[in-house]
Amino acid sequence: MIELGPNRYGKSAIRLVKVIRGPDRHQVRDLTVAVSLEGSFEAAHIEGDNSLVVATDTMKNTTYALAKDHLDGPVERFAGTLAEHFLGFEQVDFATVTAREHAWQPIPVPSGAARDAFMRDASFTRFAEAEARRGETRVRAGLEDLTVLKTTKSAFVGFPRDRFTTLPEAADRLMATKVSATWAYTPGRPALDYDALFDGVRRSLLEVFAEHESPSVQASAWIMGSAILERHADVDEITMRLPNLHHWQVDLSPYGLGNDGEIFVATTEPHGLIEATVRRRTE
Amino acid sequence: MIELGPNRYGKSAIRLVKVIRGPDRHQVRDLTVAVSLEGSFEAAHIEGDNSLVVATDTMKNTTYALAKDHLDGPVERFAGTLAEHFLGFEQVDFATVTAREHAWQPIPVPSGAARDAFMRDASFTRFAEAEARRGETRVRAGLEDLTVLKTTKSAFVGFPRDRFTTLPEAADRLMATKVSATWAYTPGRPALDYDALFDGVRRSLLEVFAEHESPSVQASAWIMGSAILERHADVDEITMRLPNLHHWQVDLSPYGLGNDGEIFVATTEPHGLIEATVRRRTE
Amino acid sequence: MIELGPNRYGKSAIRLVKVIRGPDRHQVRDLTVAVSLEGSFEAAHIEGDNSLVVATDTMKNTTYALAKDHLDGPVERFAGTLAEHFLGFEQVDFATVTAREHAWQPIPVPSGAARDAFMRDASFTRFAEAEARRGETRVRAGLEDLTVLKTTKSAFVGFPRDRFTTLPEAADRLMATKVSATWAYTPGRPALDYDALFDGVRRSLLEVFAEHESPSVQASAWIMGSAILERHADVDEITMRLPNLHHWQVDLSPYGLGNDGEIFVATTEPHGLIEATVRRRTE
Amino acid sequence: MIELGPNRYGKSAIRLVKVIRGPDRHQVRDLTVAVSLEGSFEAAHIEGDNSLVVATDTMKNTTYALAKDHLDGPVERFAGTLAEHFLGFEQVDFATVTAREHAWQPIPVPSGAARDAFMRDASFTRFAEAEARRGETRVRAGLEDLTVLKTTKSAFVGFPRDRFTTLPEAADRLMATKVSATWAYTPGRPALDYDALFDGVRRSLLEVFAEHESPSVQASAWIMGSAILERHADVDEITMRLPNLHHWQVDLSPYGLGNDGEIFVATTEPHGLIEATVRRRTE
Repeated sequence: MIELGPNRYGKSAIRLVKVIRGPDRHQVRDLTVAVSLEGSFEAAHIEGDNSLVVATDTMKNTTYALAKDHLDGPVERFAGTLAEHFLGFEQVDFATVTAREHAWQPIPVPSGAARDAFMRDASFTRFAEAEARRGETRVRAGLEDLTVLKTTKSAFVGFPRDRFTTLPEAADRLMATKVSATWAYTPGRPALDYDALFDGVRRSLLEVFAEHESPSVQASAWIMGSAILERHADVDEITMRLPNLHHWQVDLSPYGLGNDGEIFVATTEPHGLIEATVRRRTE
Repeated sequence: MIELGPNRYGKSAIRLVKVIRGPDRHQVRDLTVAVSLEGSFEAAHIEGDNSLVVATDTMKNTTYALAKDHLDGPVERFAGTLAEHFLGFEQVDFATVTAREHAWQPIPVPSGAARDAFMRDASFTRFAEAEARRGETRVRAGLEDLTVLKTTKSAFVGFPRDRFTTLPEAADRLMATKVSATWAYTPGRPALDYDALFDGVRRSLLEVFAEHESPSVQASAWIMGSAILERHADVDEITMRLPNLHHWQVDLSPYGLGNDGEIFVATTEPHGLIEATVRRRTE
Repeated sequence: MIELGPNRYGKSAIRLVKVIRGPDRHQVRDLTVAVSLEGSFEAAHIEGDNSLVVATDTMKNTTYALAKDHLDGPVERFAGTLAEHFLGFEQVDFATVTAREHAWQPIPVPSGAARDAFMRDASFTRFAEAEARRGETRVRAGLEDLTVLKTTKSAFVGFPRDRFTTLPEAADRLMATKVSATWAYTPGRPALDYDALFDGVRRSLLEVFAEHESPSVQASAWIMGSAILERHADVDEITMRLPNLHHWQVDLSPYGLGNDGEIFVATTEPHGLIEATVRRRTE
Repeated sequence: MIELGPNRYGKSAIRLVKVIRGPDRHQVRDLTVAVSLEGSFEAAHIEGDNSLVVATDTMKNTTYALAKDHLDGPVERFAGTLAEHFLGFEQVDFATVTAREHAWQPIPVPSGAARDAFMRDASFTRFAEAEARRGETRVRAGLEDLTVLKTTKSAFVGFPRDRFTTLPEAADRLMATKVSATWAYTPGRPALDYDALFDGVRRSLLEVFAEHESPSVQASAWIMGSAILERHADVDEITMRLPNLHHWQVDLSPYGLGNDGEIFVATTEPHGLIEATVRRRTE
């Protein structure tokens, strides 16, 4: 016997820009949204019965339409509103909305900041996810594409050596990574200030990255993650994905030159990949 | 209390080419490999103790070294050998190896097929995954980047209409998707012929895609998935990820031209995304 | 004094799919088109006078509209028709149309080849360019994304050595490249069979790549280019861009293993880049 | 008769990071370098004679070696030093070095700015090019990947309408582009302050983009370019490549909603592409 297993469907890569034209200055919200639904879609698959299949085109239209009235605060709140909207369809048990927000900064001009001209700040992408089921909506926030580098305070020593181990011990090395992190907010807290929380977590992550002594990327993940949980009571858990973007010191001795931590070749292939979740223990 | 949750680490994007120099012709194996380990790595995170941390550089070296003697059959088998190797470390409970194999075809020359010159066949990427734990290794195969298109036998009608629905019913539309599919082989079967199975599943998928009448991408996923399970007894389940790459018919009427399913604009943003697993029911 | 120098404008990334629904089988044409115009656009720049500025949106519309009646033969001919159309605007002196054609193959089914279902063949991209000015249209053809590899018959020896040279001589190495080539057809030839010519040049390029002994990528460019000019009288010149995608032999001796041209690491950064034009001498 | 036409070769995608470890703070220089040579390379192509072929591997080594002592000021100066080095080979007539510099900012920490930890600033990429021939080195600077958007002060009206024109006149539209610009410094000027000039041109470009009224992207290119030449006497000419990244206002009327310049769909395919050079007239 053959059966349908887990399934979901939706619309991805919905590109949405909203301009909020205030009296003094404009504001730009720039999102890439994805909607995904789970529910009673067995007949759609097995019998080709579309009577319950909300069209993905409708999901796209809904995203633009709800943005008109509801995209006026933190992106997490808009994701939640949009996800909960789809629970209005009886056949939907579970709606997930993810939104990546691309930041725009006012262009500096002699008089201060331009009121209606912006430049893209590609230093990171803000991520939000709302998972709505009847009775509960869970919210995660996150950041992606945040590339950071430490020029010291990173080591990797004391690891086991087998027949295939050639890596020398490194008491002082460069450490670079492109952070992807998402964190869950404790459910049931009323009215979190998502913008302030996002800024706080991002600032904490950067600060701890800058200041800690790293014995390994694994330890760095723990140190950053546990610091974030200690500093931010509304954060329940954080999952980090940290590629180790190796920088290899170049051997300049054939040219009669020394190289004491100065000249490196930056590489992306291959790369280490460290993934860890740090969370509050529930007893 | 803060604790370490799920964690794993490894090496990704290991680019490996093996040339097998047979007496009559050469053969090229071109893989992108990733290794990931789970196990007793709590001290590494929390205490910065690297004594159990197999270096990701060692994983890379091991991949190249084992390819010398063991990359001589299906990529699934190499992935399994490599994953099982890492169980030789006591601290490792679970080792996952994924390998993407890039196909090369001999270049046609007047005398037949070149014996030592090849062209990349980028029509799809073959995927293999081995998950090894003590006592069992599970193998999945898959394919990615297989882009297909039907010019008829695809419809989407009878879907619900709400305030935000503007999509017209389509009795005959283009359907295009870039297939990602992975399937699990039933554990415990001795000596599967992974190459023949891969070719068979790929052929089945293409044939059914070509021949079926599609009432929706969801139904197509079911029809293709259940056909594969019916035809291939060693396949236990298959998971498909099918973006709906919309082709919109262009309105040429402003120019006094008709357009009866002839001229389309191909789009990738936004796209539908349909994901489904089809599996054998275990009672 | 400040003046306007060279300038042009147009529309890029126009994605166009045409389905030709023949009685026995369908055919898919899948193009990415760019249009670019040069002419009397000084007032547009300096005075903001748009009265002569053909909208790029109009270029897009024209591309779709002309495809309806004119995209029924070689892509080079469609590029020419489209480029010449824009000379209908008096202010246009020079119109360039480039088109990349993405190939689709019928899916093999038990009864032969599917008549209305296709798979993308991503082994190369066909390129066409038409440059129209009053009285003359010049046509180039080309191919991109053709990745090829030789497992022998490639060497690199006898190069000069200076203080910074560490590369050993290589009497037998792997050679891999991703070919970009464009070639010009002799102007004034009536009614070239562009499809047959494209296939012929592509076949020649592959054959010569496979069969020649390469002392360097530079020499390979000359050998392939001059062979193409010798074999194809309608080709006037050919320009090749050949990245040298290095494959480095892995040192397996630390693991007690030999490696005689078997195990390589494939790299893309950094890469050599060899560019050369081969042409008929005009005396 | 067949002959060799224009040709050049070199090494691309050389990824170089230099850490300058000052007493108070570290500094990171992160470059992607390409070297390209032209000269007496006919024998290399036609006769397979490598005796004059500087290995591209040597170019890479040289880049790292010269970075040790010479990458301590503006990237333009390093590009010039590196290009001029290759004129030391008699057979080289012309050496081009391009360098893209990726910016890193110190991470903000409670005590101020981290002295040895950095975050990547991906808001733009700085570009430098040095073309060295005996007796003269020409320097260009540039920027890439600078994405900007105006929410007003952009119009496009008064353009010609033909059979294929459907675009409505737009008195007030969004204008977005991803600027690529390169500019030439007047040769023969002693000791330009390349860093200050780069910052100045970038600031001018942003300011003028923000403040001007745009009747078309063509006019914007002229307004920005001529302003830069007026403000910066050492800049001889500037070439801009400005894709018009269309933002289409979404029709929300089917949902009973207005949309007065609020909700847009951001697109990249197709896009307008405007290219123009603005230069000093030489009489």
